[in-house]
Amino acid sequence: MRIGMVGYAFMGAAHSQAWRTVNRVYDLPAYARMTAICGRDESKVAEAAARLGWDGHTTDWRSLVDRDDIDVIDVCTPGDSHAEIAIAALAAGKHVLCEKPLANTVDEARAMAAAAAEARSVGVRSMCGFNYRRVPAIALMRQLVADGRIGEIRHVRATYLQDWLVDPTVPLAWRLQKDKAGSGALGDIGAHIIDATEFVTGQRIASVSGLIETFVKERPLPGEASGLAAKSLALVDGSAPATGPVTVDDAALFTARLDGGAVGSYEATRFATGRKNGLRIEINGSLGSVAFDFERMNELEFYDAARPTSEQGFSRILVTEPDHPYMSAWWPAGHLIGYEHSFTHQARDFLEAVATGVDPTPSFDDALHVQLVLEAVERSAATGAWIAVDSALTAVNA
Amino acid sequence: MRIGMVGYAFMGAAHSQAWRTVNRVYDLPAYARMTAICGRDESKVAEAAARLGWDGHTTDWRSLVDRDDIDVIDVCTPGDSHAEIAIAALAAGKHVLCEKPLANTVDEARAMAAAAAEARSVGVRSMCGFNYRRVPAIALMRQLVADGRIGEIRHVRATYLQDWLVDPTVPLAWRLQKDKAGSGALGDIGAHIIDATEFVTGQRIASVSGLIETFVKERPLPGEASGLAAKSLALVDGSAPATGPVTVDDAALFTARLDGGAVGSYEATRFATGRKNGLRIEINGSLGSVAFDFERMNELEFYDAARPTSEQGFSRILVTEPDHPYMSAWWPAGHLIGYEHSFTHQARDFLEAVATGVDPTPSFDDALHVQLVLEAVERSAATGAWIAVDSALTAVNA
Amino acid sequence: MRIGMVGYAFMGAAHSQAWRTVNRVYDLPAYARMTAICGRDESKVAEAAARLGWDGHTTDWRSLVDRDDIDVIDVCTPGDSHAEIAIAALAAGKHVLCEKPLANTVDEARAMAAAAAEARSVGVRSMCGFNYRRVPAIALMRQLVADGRIGEIRHVRATYLQDWLVDPTVPLAWRLQKDKAGSGALGDIGAHIIDATEFVTGQRIASVSGLIETFVKERPLPGEASGLAAKSLALVDGSAPATGPVTVDDAALFTARLDGGAVGSYEATRFATGRKNGLRIEINGSLGSVAFDFERMNELEFYDAARPTSEQGFSRILVTEPDHPYMSAWWPAGHLIGYEHSFTHQARDFLEAVATGVDPTPSFDDALHVQLVLEAVERSAATGAWIAVDSALTAVNA
Amino acid sequence: MRIGMVGYAFMGAAHSQAWRTVNRVYDLPAYARMTAICGRDESKVAEAAARLGWDGHTTDWRSLVDRDDIDVIDVCTPGDSHAEIAIAALAAGKHVLCEKPLANTVDEARAMAAAAAEARSVGVRSMCGFNYRRVPAIALMRQLVADGRIGEIRHVRATYLQDWLVDPTVPLAWRLQKDKAGSGALGDIGAHIIDATEFVTGQRIASVSGLIETFVKERPLPGEASGLAAKSLALVDGSAPATGPVTVDDAALFTARLDGGAVGSYEATRFATGRKNGLRIEINGSLGSVAFDFERMNELEFYDAARPTSEQGFSRILVTEPDHPYMSAWWPAGHLIGYEHSFTHQARDFLEAVATGVDPTPSFDDALHVQLVLEAVERSAATGAWIAVDSALTAVNA
Repeated sequence: MRIGMVGYAFMGAAHSQAWRTVNRVYDLPAYARMTAICGRDESKVAEAAARLGWDGHTTDWRSLVDRDDIDVIDVCTPGDSHAEIAIAALAAGKHVLCEKPLANTVDEARAMAAAAAEARSVGVRSMCGFNYRRVPAIALMRQLVADGRIGEIRHVRATYLQDWLVDPTVPLAWRLQKDKAGSGALGDIGAHIIDATEFVTGQRIASVSGLIETFVKERPLPGEASGLAAKSLALVDGSAPATGPVTVDDAALFTARLDGGAVGSYEATRFATGRKNGLRIEINGSLGSVAFDFERMNELEFYDAARPTSEQGFSRILVTEPDHPYMSAWWPAGHLIGYEHSFTHQARDFLEAVATGVDPTPSFDDALHVQLVLEAVERSAATGAWIAVDSALTAVNA
Repeated sequence: MRIGMVGYAFMGAAHSQAWRTVNRVYDLPAYARMTAICGRDESKVAEAAARLGWDGHTTDWRSLVDRDDIDVIDVCTPGDSHAEIAIAALAAGKHVLCEKPLANTVDEARAMAAAAAEARSVGVRSMCGFNYRRVPAIALMRQLVADGRIGEIRHVRATYLQDWLVDPTVPLAWRLQKDKAGSGALGDIGAHIIDATEFVTGQRIASVSGLIETFVKERPLPGEASGLAAKSLALVDGSAPATGPVTVDDAALFTARLDGGAVGSYEATRFATGRKNGLRIEINGSLGSVAFDFERMNELEFYDAARPTSEQGFSRILVTEPDHPYMSAWWPAGHLIGYEHSFTHQARDFLEAVATGVDPTPSFDDALHVQLVLEAVERSAATGAWIAVDSALTAVNA
Repeated sequence: MRIGMVGYAFMGAAHSQAWRTVNRVYDLPAYARMTAICGRDESKVAEAAARLGWDGHTTDWRSLVDRDDIDVIDVCTPGDSHAEIAIAALAAGKHVLCEKPLANTVDEARAMAAAAAEARSVGVRSMCGFNYRRVPAIALMRQLVADGRIGEIRHVRATYLQDWLVDPTVPLAWRLQKDKAGSGALGDIGAHIIDATEFVTGQRIASVSGLIETFVKERPLPGEASGLAAKSLALVDGSAPATGPVTVDDAALFTARLDGGAVGSYEATRFATGRKNGLRIEINGSLGSVAFDFERMNELEFYDAARPTSEQGFSRILVTEPDHPYMSAWWPAGHLIGYEHSFTHQARDFLEAVATGVDPTPSFDDALHVQLVLEAVERSAATGAWIAVDSALTAVNA
Repeated sequence: MRIGMVGYAFMGAAHSQAWRTVNRVYDLPAYARMTAICGRDESKVAEAAARLGWDGHTTDWRSLVDRDDIDVIDVCTPGDSHAEIAIAALAAGKHVLCEKPLANTVDEARAMAAAAAEARSVGVRSMCGFNYRRVPAIALMRQLVADGRIGEIRHVRATYLQDWLVDPTVPLAWRLQKDKAGSGALGDIGAHIIDATEFVTGQRIASVSGLIETFVKERPLPGEASGLAAKSLALVDGSAPATGPVTVDDAALFTARLDGGAVGSYEATRFATGRKNGLRIEINGSLGSVAFDFERMNELEFYDAARPTSEQGFSRILVTEPDHPYMSAWWPAGHLIGYEHSFTHQARDFLEAVATGVDPTPSFDDALHVQLVLEAVERSAATGAWIAVDSALTAVNA
């Protein structure tokens, strides 16, 4: 399976590590060959190809899509180019793995889902890169829910807390510009907890009441624009750096009703001082609860209300046993895995699905639904009203 | 200072322990004498007086209010009788300590605040029993905010999670009946996190979007109705017990804007399986964060963004040092205190304020504000709209 | 049951709180009357009697022992006077509750155990105040072991970590003088983990290899000598304060073999910077494990190896349920208790045993065994050899 | 830098992942080429070479050592072959990275250290694979000690707790046979905590008192003998499997004195039910403390006694910041790394040292010292006496 990847920054590095590792660890019906990457800057993309281990490189994504010796297009660019690249790739018969959020607008996402449906009919596969589904503890959470161990779900409590924008001198990178990123914390990290909770519960968010805030409204213009921590332009003459307006949200909160009867609380922010990657999910049901924090990603807390009262408590499961999802291929119990492993697991599932002719999940339809929730939150925040998630989708496909 | 207490169930026991202990531990300008308690059932109140250590007892609260040898009326009844008793006591010149929530309706709360204002003008004091303010870790949290260590506050994140209603056979106690309790999780425990976060931040909730849910709508009628765990009527003939409608919320969630610029997420529920008394507060500011969980009430987590980057982290402060609030009177460092100590601290502050002619806090005005927030949440939940908290109060008095 | 207490410092305050509270909380066949306390300084003991709620006071412990209207002598003095007071009290027919360690030497402890045996034969009871046995989580730990949930015990891991001597200017209080305290960390806090682990496991320490260290060998002489935090003499002329030699250990470590086949690691220190009262116990058995930390005294961690592999993990049991040891009398689940509650539980068990004619535990024999272990550790540390615990006791009486 | 690796089981897989990744992540003066691996079974080693990404393979380690196109020999075999392979490789002028423990006996270790000294004189480098030194949190711990933040070290508390032998049906793999493994928990995991604490403190263990135990003395013979979890022979006729004697320790405990004045407690066991990879280190000093648990390997707890009393507490540092050791090359803050990363860091340091002509650490001398401690523990356990670590080494080379 010959891969062509577009983009080589943060996500590009993570995906490269996954493609490079996946066949070293898992026995799979397909072998990932790192054929070529694409980026706008010739010398940088050449350097990235050499460093990350790709056979070739190009500055023209269309040429990548057109190559005969490429089977998969892996889209790791900012959200504003997802639709164009993914649709072209699907049309060219390439399987597509597209980073999240699927697109910057619902219209784009709808077009992508339509393209994916058409491609699917001729055996071309597509998948959106909500990598947190492949964290073993989150997969185990879903398993416990699916096995009925949590019972009827009452509460979903999800936050994604970061703090890298607390400092007002952090520059205005592409992630802070609406035209490039679509939205701020909402789409970047809020999308993850929307998808992850829908994945875990098997329920979909049906209506929301949202609140959106931008705490720091002007920031210095950046010197270079890739990665999470782009450096600001240092002016030689000591004058204040030029600034520009932040056009996305710093924080987004919403309450929700899910279609299976649960109520939910969601919060995504880049202003939670001290929380570095606090993707936390707690699910309370009639028979038990599960709780997860990505800052302790190898652990799952499970409360089983069926145990004797005097022994009940949240169990800290170290999700490193061979019979935990994805873990048989790694190290002995108690030897942790890291962030990047979720991408290796994603690569595994993608390769396996494509090689065996199965549609991988999350599908573009699933990702479109996330996009609809994001839009509903923004509309609710703008109007102050509860908004039903507008959806023609009829089933939770996850 | 001669105390007369009305009510002798859960809160009555906690207050009794406080009055009995406070002068053994603290040096105070006044001494609490446990003069008499009042309850409706003659034999039970007599038994309670003996067990809890009160000199006398009565079944008529009006007689208690009228006695010359009583200086303080301590109101520990369900919310539906707070207004009548407290107003009468204030009119009779008694200082009043009234359990939370102040009342079951905004109208009652307004009348109580007015009565308190009038009484204050002649030196009669009143206070509402939001005891969590007197947990040392919460008092320390406020101190850190007040000292500027947290900086500009961005996020308030508060939950009060319990699970004692998950079992659908738990009977229909007074706390589940709107006419007695006013509301459910919202007023009973939501009120605590509203007050505690306003206390800690010095900001007031200005507008809210609420969601309210009753998961279990019918419950068996109870055999006896006091305490948190009233037993259900066991029918002799084995037939299903008679049931009645739950008329209050099981869970209430709301997002909020505070008047100092922070945004907030609030959740109160009795359906969070595995969470027994999860009063949790996290505050994120521009300079630091604090986090608290009542299930570990002797600890405060403090993140100080002023420390060197490589040493930053949430510090688990064991709030048992002599220079922590309220703690110099207790045991050596590392020797924990419990739930009931918050009432002893409350008794200390109340006695000291009254004895020195100072108004204790939280005042009835503060508690009225909490009531206004509760009402705003209910109205928002009913209409789906954001609701501004209607308030004639002009300053945060805390 | 009329109590006479000798000593009114740290332990005296804790015991007073217990006697004052026990009948308010528990239904018991006997009622504790706080008849009189005894201390050397007339004005201080008078003040303490008033503050702590005792009916009378005296400066002569012998007169207390001789009074007809006293049923129980509660010994809360430093260890050097335990033997004399307890033996006299037992001879006078008084039931005795004696603080730990039982004595400063094995010879004294043997004499006390002999006196207790003689008194027992005429219905006079005795008990040693290892209060940590009455922490609900520790009692639950013992229950799980006794119920076979832990299986065959392999490992005992116990530390008692404090840090109040890290500061070299902390003065030379009685706890640092061998003639008064017997030993340092070893007897003061090491004794607690010896007793607690023997209580929990039902096994006795059979042999030890010890290491003892005094890090700070000279300290300023104290101004006044009671409590944990006695203040140093401040010299008016600014000269360095007079110092004296620390004659006890700062830290004691030992490895052990228990008589049921387990191996153990023990450590007691006052130099564990940042650990305030870190009494920690972990037991590993063939079927499960339990772990406890007094700094989170309301929690017990329990690992049940009988659960399915993918769900195994340490469960954080919040030991606040009505069916947990001692807890039905306190607050609803999730409402914590504190350090002093262990003394109230101890008072409950003592009163109940005495009133119903049963020998309370830990007995003086149990406490003598602890003393023998302490001596074995000291001898091992002095000689560098493994030392068998010399014991004529034939059964674990706990 | 052309690598030849001997062994391809657990350690071989971990080292392969490291060699494959190191130049993708770090900018280094040398590039690791995975030239060939060696194993005894032709078909298995061929399969391993293909799976793990090695260019070639062989069944004869001597031919590997003799090849001109190999610069580095990476020894990942059981301990009984370390000495022969490493000495031959050094004699052949190959740089050597040798897994820990360095050897199975002190004599072998001495011979290896001598060979390393001779090789060093002609620019040939050697290093022992104590990979935990390269866990960022442990490296940070050392940094804090070296920077004087912990002050004078009083206590070292180290455990390495696993539980994979609790089940008595786990077969008699090579790690349970003295002739192959040298010792059991002591050398396998105890060696890690000896090295790690010496690394962190800069002190060496000077004398010990040891206790060694084998709880399960007979185990079924294994069917195949590689990895941690070798499967037992399943007999076709249903008879009980043949068993053999366990000739190594299941658990080893020792107390120690370090040459800088600290006292230490050490424990290594494979019978700590529920602890999967509990490598825990706590250091208490006069100015602060640090605590680490490998099961939360991305965190370091740091207590800074220099902070104001009311703010003191253990800070949970998430060791994922760019300015933490090794972390600038990985993901944004809050994105965790796993077990295998320690090997990548080790590969980085090894490559860099060799390429720049510097001796890497830990040296064979450092590893010989660990071997001397292991021997001292065994001799102490056999005799019951304190044993001084016999050492001609004069300085802590770490």
